[in-house]
Amino acid sequence: MPADDDVERLAVPPILDLGFARLDTARGVRQGVPEAVLAEGKRPEHVAAIVAGLVEEGSETVIVTRADEVARAAVRAAVDGLEEDAEARMMWLRRGVPQPAGTVAIVSAGTSDGAVVREVAVTCELLGTNVAIQQDVGVAGLHRLAVALPDLRAADCVVVAAGQDAALASVVGGLVAAPVIAVPTSVGYGVASGGQVALMSMLASCAPGVAVVNIDDGFGAATVASRIARAAAR
Amino acid sequence: MPADDDVERLAVPPILDLGFARLDTARGVRQGVPEAVLAEGKRPEHVAAIVAGLVEEGSETVIVTRADEVARAAVRAAVDGLEEDAEARMMWLRRGVPQPAGTVAIVSAGTSDGAVVREVAVTCELLGTNVAIQQDVGVAGLHRLAVALPDLRAADCVVVAAGQDAALASVVGGLVAAPVIAVPTSVGYGVASGGQVALMSMLASCAPGVAVVNIDDGFGAATVASRIARAAAR
Amino acid sequence: MPADDDVERLAVPPILDLGFARLDTARGVRQGVPEAVLAEGKRPEHVAAIVAGLVEEGSETVIVTRADEVARAAVRAAVDGLEEDAEARMMWLRRGVPQPAGTVAIVSAGTSDGAVVREVAVTCELLGTNVAIQQDVGVAGLHRLAVALPDLRAADCVVVAAGQDAALASVVGGLVAAPVIAVPTSVGYGVASGGQVALMSMLASCAPGVAVVNIDDGFGAATVASRIARAAAR
Amino acid sequence: MPADDDVERLAVPPILDLGFARLDTARGVRQGVPEAVLAEGKRPEHVAAIVAGLVEEGSETVIVTRADEVARAAVRAAVDGLEEDAEARMMWLRRGVPQPAGTVAIVSAGTSDGAVVREVAVTCELLGTNVAIQQDVGVAGLHRLAVALPDLRAADCVVVAAGQDAALASVVGGLVAAPVIAVPTSVGYGVASGGQVALMSMLASCAPGVAVVNIDDGFGAATVASRIARAAAR
Amino acid sequence: MPADDDVERLAVPPILDLGFARLDTARGVRQGVPEAVLAEGKRPEHVAAIVAGLVEEGSETVIVTRADEVARAAVRAAVDGLEEDAEARMMWLRRGVPQPAGTVAIVSAGTSDGAVVREVAVTCELLGTNVAIQQDVGVAGLHRLAVALPDLRAADCVVVAAGQDAALASVVGGLVAAPVIAVPTSVGYGVASGGQVALMSMLASCAPGVAVVNIDDGFGAATVASRIARAAAR
Amino acid sequence: MPADDDVERLAVPPILDLGFARLDTARGVRQGVPEAVLAEGKRPEHVAAIVAGLVEEGSETVIVTRADEVARAAVRAAVDGLEEDAEARMMWLRRGVPQPAGTVAIVSAGTSDGAVVREVAVTCELLGTNVAIQQDVGVAGLHRLAVALPDLRAADCVVVAAGQDAALASVVGGLVAAPVIAVPTSVGYGVASGGQVALMSMLASCAPGVAVVNIDDGFGAATVASRIARAAAR
Amino acid sequence: MPADDDVERLAVPPILDLGFARLDTARGVRQGVPEAVLAEGKRPEHVAAIVAGLVEEGSETVIVTRADEVARAAVRAAVDGLEEDAEARMMWLRRGVPQPAGTVAIVSAGTSDGAVVREVAVTCELLGTNVAIQQDVGVAGLHRLAVALPDLRAADCVVVAAGQDAALASVVGGLVAAPVIAVPTSVGYGVASGGQVALMSMLASCAPGVAVVNIDDGFGAATVASRIARAAAR
Amino acid sequence: MPADDDVERLAVPPILDLGFARLDTARGVRQGVPEAVLAEGKRPEHVAAIVAGLVEEGSETVIVTRADEVARAAVRAAVDGLEEDAEARMMWLRRGVPQPAGTVAIVSAGTSDGAVVREVAVTCELLGTNVAIQQDVGVAGLHRLAVALPDLRAADCVVVAAGQDAALASVVGGLVAAPVIAVPTSVGYGVASGGQVALMSMLASCAPGVAVVNIDDGFGAATVASRIARAAAR
Repeated sequence: MPADDDVERLAVPPILDLGFARLDTARGVRQGVPEAVLAEGKRPEHVAAIVAGLVEEGSETVIVTRADEVARAAVRAAVDGLEEDAEARMMWLRRGVPQPAGTVAIVSAGTSDGAVVREVAVTCELLGTNVAIQQDVGVAGLHRLAVALPDLRAADCVVVAAGQDAALASVVGGLVAAPVIAVPTSVGYGVASGGQVALMSMLASCAPGVAVVNIDDGFGAATVASRIARAAAR
Repeated sequence: MPADDDVERLAVPPILDLGFARLDTARGVRQGVPEAVLAEGKRPEHVAAIVAGLVEEGSETVIVTRADEVARAAVRAAVDGLEEDAEARMMWLRRGVPQPAGTVAIVSAGTSDGAVVREVAVTCELLGTNVAIQQDVGVAGLHRLAVALPDLRAADCVVVAAGQDAALASVVGGLVAAPVIAVPTSVGYGVASGGQVALMSMLASCAPGVAVVNIDDGFGAATVASRIARAAAR
Repeated sequence: MPADDDVERLAVPPILDLGFARLDTARGVRQGVPEAVLAEGKRPEHVAAIVAGLVEEGSETVIVTRADEVARAAVRAAVDGLEEDAEARMMWLRRGVPQPAGTVAIVSAGTSDGAVVREVAVTCELLGTNVAIQQDVGVAGLHRLAVALPDLRAADCVVVAAGQDAALASVVGGLVAAPVIAVPTSVGYGVASGGQVALMSMLASCAPGVAVVNIDDGFGAATVASRIARAAAR
Repeated sequence: MPADDDVERLAVPPILDLGFARLDTARGVRQGVPEAVLAEGKRPEHVAAIVAGLVEEGSETVIVTRADEVARAAVRAAVDGLEEDAEARMMWLRRGVPQPAGTVAIVSAGTSDGAVVREVAVTCELLGTNVAIQQDVGVAGLHRLAVALPDLRAADCVVVAAGQDAALASVVGGLVAAPVIAVPTSVGYGVASGGQVALMSMLASCAPGVAVVNIDDGFGAATVASRIARAAAR
Repeated sequence: MPADDDVERLAVPPILDLGFARLDTARGVRQGVPEAVLAEGKRPEHVAAIVAGLVEEGSETVIVTRADEVARAAVRAAVDGLEEDAEARMMWLRRGVPQPAGTVAIVSAGTSDGAVVREVAVTCELLGTNVAIQQDVGVAGLHRLAVALPDLRAADCVVVAAGQDAALASVVGGLVAAPVIAVPTSVGYGVASGGQVALMSMLASCAPGVAVVNIDDGFGAATVASRIARAAAR
Repeated sequence: MPADDDVERLAVPPILDLGFARLDTARGVRQGVPEAVLAEGKRPEHVAAIVAGLVEEGSETVIVTRADEVARAAVRAAVDGLEEDAEARMMWLRRGVPQPAGTVAIVSAGTSDGAVVREVAVTCELLGTNVAIQQDVGVAGLHRLAVALPDLRAADCVVVAAGQDAALASVVGGLVAAPVIAVPTSVGYGVASGGQVALMSMLASCAPGVAVVNIDDGFGAATVASRIARAAAR
Repeated sequence: MPADDDVERLAVPPILDLGFARLDTARGVRQGVPEAVLAEGKRPEHVAAIVAGLVEEGSETVIVTRADEVARAAVRAAVDGLEEDAEARMMWLRRGVPQPAGTVAIVSAGTSDGAVVREVAVTCELLGTNVAIQQDVGVAGLHRLAVALPDLRAADCVVVAAGQDAALASVVGGLVAAPVIAVPTSVGYGVASGGQVALMSMLASCAPGVAVVNIDDGFGAATVASRIARAAAR
Repeated sequence: MPADDDVERLAVPPILDLGFARLDTARGVRQGVPEAVLAEGKRPEHVAAIVAGLVEEGSETVIVTRADEVARAAVRAAVDGLEEDAEARMMWLRRGVPQPAGTVAIVSAGTSDGAVVREVAVTCELLGTNVAIQQDVGVAGLHRLAVALPDLRAADCVVVAAGQDAALASVVGGLVAAPVIAVPTSVGYGVASGGQVALMSMLASCAPGVAVVNIDDGFGAATVASRIARAAAR
């Protein structure tokens, strides 16, 4: 049964095995993106042990996402030298951040989208792109968009963060020629609560060239956007 | 038990009773809007009998909505003199259309919204308002909005018909000072199919002054809009 | 590429740019409604800074909505002279409230709808309309409606706030000739919890002339209603 | 293992076994209601064979529900002597209809609810209750309710059939002292399509004394209502 | 416009108007059921004031439902002499409980349904029926049902409280001849969480004679059941 | 980058490549189950070409599922010698059916579940197990279960097919010691329509030892069940 | 009416009746699985009393699931000698754990699935199977799967625990010949939150031989898996 | 009010106004993508008139999507010289297709995804990229992926089309370094029907670098992918 052997032979890359976690330390090599540690849903001591393992292993860049204060404190206690950003709920160690190449513009519909904007910005920088930020550009006041437009049109990729009706994604999608990555945010109340309406509205966008990531997934948007921007700037 | 007597005493207005239907012939007096006959879901012979009853009873304006070809044929065979519009799926008899007063602007996001636009326009005219129509004004090409804007700003009420992401409702909501009545349409595919996303997006609109009616409910939007426009023009 | 120039030229109105927020100080001019600050979802220090900015900028009326005690305290510490209402979760500065014109009647189905009623009432007053309030008029006791009916029939616009089955919207919609703006409320348990059933029931209303806003969106209902009422009273 | 023996001993009542179906011919004895054959979803030849089996077996009353024209034709070809009603999509053989006892009032919100009203009425009669029917009593014209109220108040149980917002269930629930069984109907379009909104609205009813059955389940409503009415009339 | 006068004339029954609440003190007369105060969603001081108003007004039986400890303390501080039950989250004053007539059997699927069982039992007693309780009769152990069956078969109405798959409703529905009122409960996790699956499963029940109320609505079930049982015992 | 090489080395097993399809002819070796061709959603000519390819390739057993009359005709025209079953919507070629081992009992709640029962039975036989069938064992008549119980208790695995409330899964789950595989069926109307309620009810089952497959997925249930039964009979 | 007697005769097995609970002490005999006590949703004092009752009654193995710290403390205070596991939220008394037979492999997609993995593992051991655990085998790094594959292929049944997209279930389902029991976990955010996407993805799996249990239902998965594994090892 | 003027000045680009449609003929200039005509939901004569208008206007590339046979016939009758593809449901006129630059790899999970694959491929070619296609690469047979991997790794952007559990998106997302655009397809039955599960599964993907478009939106995916690929190849 040859398939069996094949899959077993796959195990060549060094895996750091902690029992409760197996760290894919070769991802940087394979995909050009360091494995990020999603802290939410993990026990703080597990997060700390994983980060410590990656740091000891010599991983170039280490990124922790969706880490609340408790998780960040556990990491801080276990490992020295990580930077952190409370609003983005991130921690990171820059050892191998590549030279910036390409530019990602980030535009948000409102002040409440700030945490997601911050997560996109920090991640993009860690993955080696330049960032331009334009916040609070709701479509209910179109002239605010005019201020933002030059930045959006100059970018290699535009990330739109918006909640509620997420109409900004369609409006921006109709104004720029670069790919648009849309991040629905969970801000809002009533039907807007949780971000499902923003998500669906973005997926149903009447503008061409818009692709969407999970609700509040600033890290995911940044990963796609920085790949696009770096490739465009090669 | 006095409540009992009271409710029984309510029966003063003349009701036209057909057994399977009771016609509220006094609605025109009570609410300034003739009772419309929703054909969909009714057997064609019932629709025809109801219309015949209303015409004989002397109702001023008679309106039939959501009437497919079969229903319209049944009415045509039973009653003479009704006008009809296949795209709007409507039939009507103008006996008491009031003098037009006020203006409703109708703006749609795409050609596919045409049937709803037509239903709004016919109804508004039958209820006594002037109508200005601007079609295919999707937000993915904002400059098309510029052509439409003077009409929208001149109106006493704006009706926005849009499917998919329905972003047009928010954009218009941010540009006009009159009340905006938004009608989600069921056009689109995938998540947009059926109009639920457009509905939710309109309800979650970040623009002030937008209220929403049922999916594809052009008649409902027109009823609200014409009340608003006529009152504003008094 | 002319579209580009156009959008850039849009930036004429003065925008107050705080980095995390861009204030549309011209909205009062453009739409007759001051920009309200939705506090929920924003960090308290951001809410306070936005309010301070608007006050300093000289905005006539400043309105803060959905502000819990923490947000209100932050504003209070930063700016003097705002009035507030804990039940409505609002704060405001009246500098340019117009002369009242027109009347909005507000009717609720139950005592639990009180917070939404209050938000509608305060907002209507700040936007320059007279208000008449009728609370706890559930349809399970129709005779209570009789007490409320004269107020409802005298108004230029009726706002109905109701949760659970929201049947009141349809009953009122059948009794008045003015436009009805329905606000679903999130009161209730089981299937009624969160207000989705009330919302859908209002959208499916069999009564003509009813339009709907987001769940618990008293501010939105008041914005539409006051536009309608003021125009009717011109 | 005694439980095993017990369940095996349960098999005392005679079961008519057709391979693809096992007929519970003792239900009339056990529950006072004959086993009804739900035709929808079954192959027409199976429906016919089941009915033939029940008739030969000597079952007193045989009832077939949700039978379209194809299914009814198959039954007609296989068995003589059944009555049928196309609107209710029912067929039946009256051999053991008990003396009528008690009264069920059936009230509907609109003409489109006619098929469900008919299914409730036929079933109630077959199960031995008197029936009073009041159709097209929508709450948007409350005075129509006044005509219906004496019948509703005289009944031992009231069945309310309504689609869309189903507000009639709450209004009736507040006016009568007998138990109310509510049947949501699938009439309507947009959010009302399929009857989910009517169902949820009835479950969330603010009126006491209302219980609900499945969408369009006239047979189920009639079964509950006739049990209530017959017991009350004992 | 005669309808107007009619509705105004409806106001004959004395309404106790507290501003934030209007008490339907005539409901006992009209429907044989005292108006219950749903505490959940109301401010504690409002609950207390409403109860005090009803007690002073001389209402015979006063019932408070879904009252947490805070609400109950507020009532206790305002009015003397109410009984209460923490598990059922109820308070009540028995002044006019009628002579018990008829019997309601209450059967639950599990221990976790205890709070709903208690709410049904207390309410049934206050409305004047006898109660027989059988708890923890899950269908996964059918022989437990055998112990409960004599009580269920002797009752005039059976209330089934069950969460998760709610299979008990169908099993009981197939074994008794009395009407079955099913209350879905919100116990369970994963897909069962919140009670929607139990609700839908009960509505889709393959057994005849089952009607359903809202999730966790023990008061509603008891209102229907006691009407049925009292009428059957007349 | 070693991972790359590894995955490429995986391609050892012979793949039959038709351009629009790649046939996993080694699955029988790897998993003991032949690759089945899901006809639904494929163009008939593609189905026929795939089947022809597998037959020519020498695959032992070939199975086609969810094949309507059009698809089956296309296969029939292209390849000789396949057996077929219209109710199960299946076609197959038995070249390597193993000796039957172990027994799967299939029990359904109603006659309408017949097509799924048939798909389970045919598949189980093709995968090498004995089959015992018990149909129309609804829980609303528990004594019917007694007839079926000996077969269910003698089996190595029990497949329960049920729609609507799917209560049978829980009842059977409480009576047998073998694993239970539950298949929700899409029969029923109103809330039961489409099988979502049956699916959720089975997942929420209060009985231990029940696992669930997709709605109407008789093939999937049979695959799991026959693996279980054959292993138990080794 | 013989059915009545039959069901009553079912009550032979000894039931331990605590009023609020009826303990099925014969389940071990009937199904080979001790009755587990689901603590969640029960009052702590009830959980403690049930456990005490089972222990006194002499039940061989006693299992408590989904018990938070409060519930566990109540049990600890009432009964001596139970083991417990905080991560699995379980307590148990091993009196009659059978000799291990057969092996269940448990594979998880991520560290966050650890609590469910633990619940599966503890339960499988208590039900008498050997366990092999492979954690954090996400499909985004397929080579990690290679490490796990030998364990998965050697097992009699594989349990896959995964949240988010749950793609691991399909990948494993395509690589092993044993039955796969999939447990969706509620880890993740945005659309993944609550585990519905993982559940649906597992049900829609394109791999043969996968059956699914409720979200986070490690106990349910273990019950099915251990039955399968023990039967296969007989 | 300066904003007004601004928006009016936006109307510079030439708009082709057909009354029911306004054609954005400048989109090619503004965004590098010709305006595509979505035929679905439009009346065939409207589609034909729009295409004729664009062709006469001199638009370089004209693309019609989701055009069934009726729509295509209408276009064919009205305009000469368009190419078409029935499986992709597309028509097009190549007048200005740019020199191909960059490569998009398209990989599908099954034969049923063929129509979407075709729509992606045709669109990518019209927008000026090279295309590499790998079909029927389901994860249930991982070795098939090995055949496809070199193409996927050589591409500037990978489009993954998959229905059901859509696990392929995550597996591919873990193996390539280029951005991945995922298109959920509506193939499948039961819970998979309509493509919602595939959509949600892709959004919840545990792999980095995946963004998602609407269900069956091959055109949307191709628009994003070709922008990415062309920019990367500059």
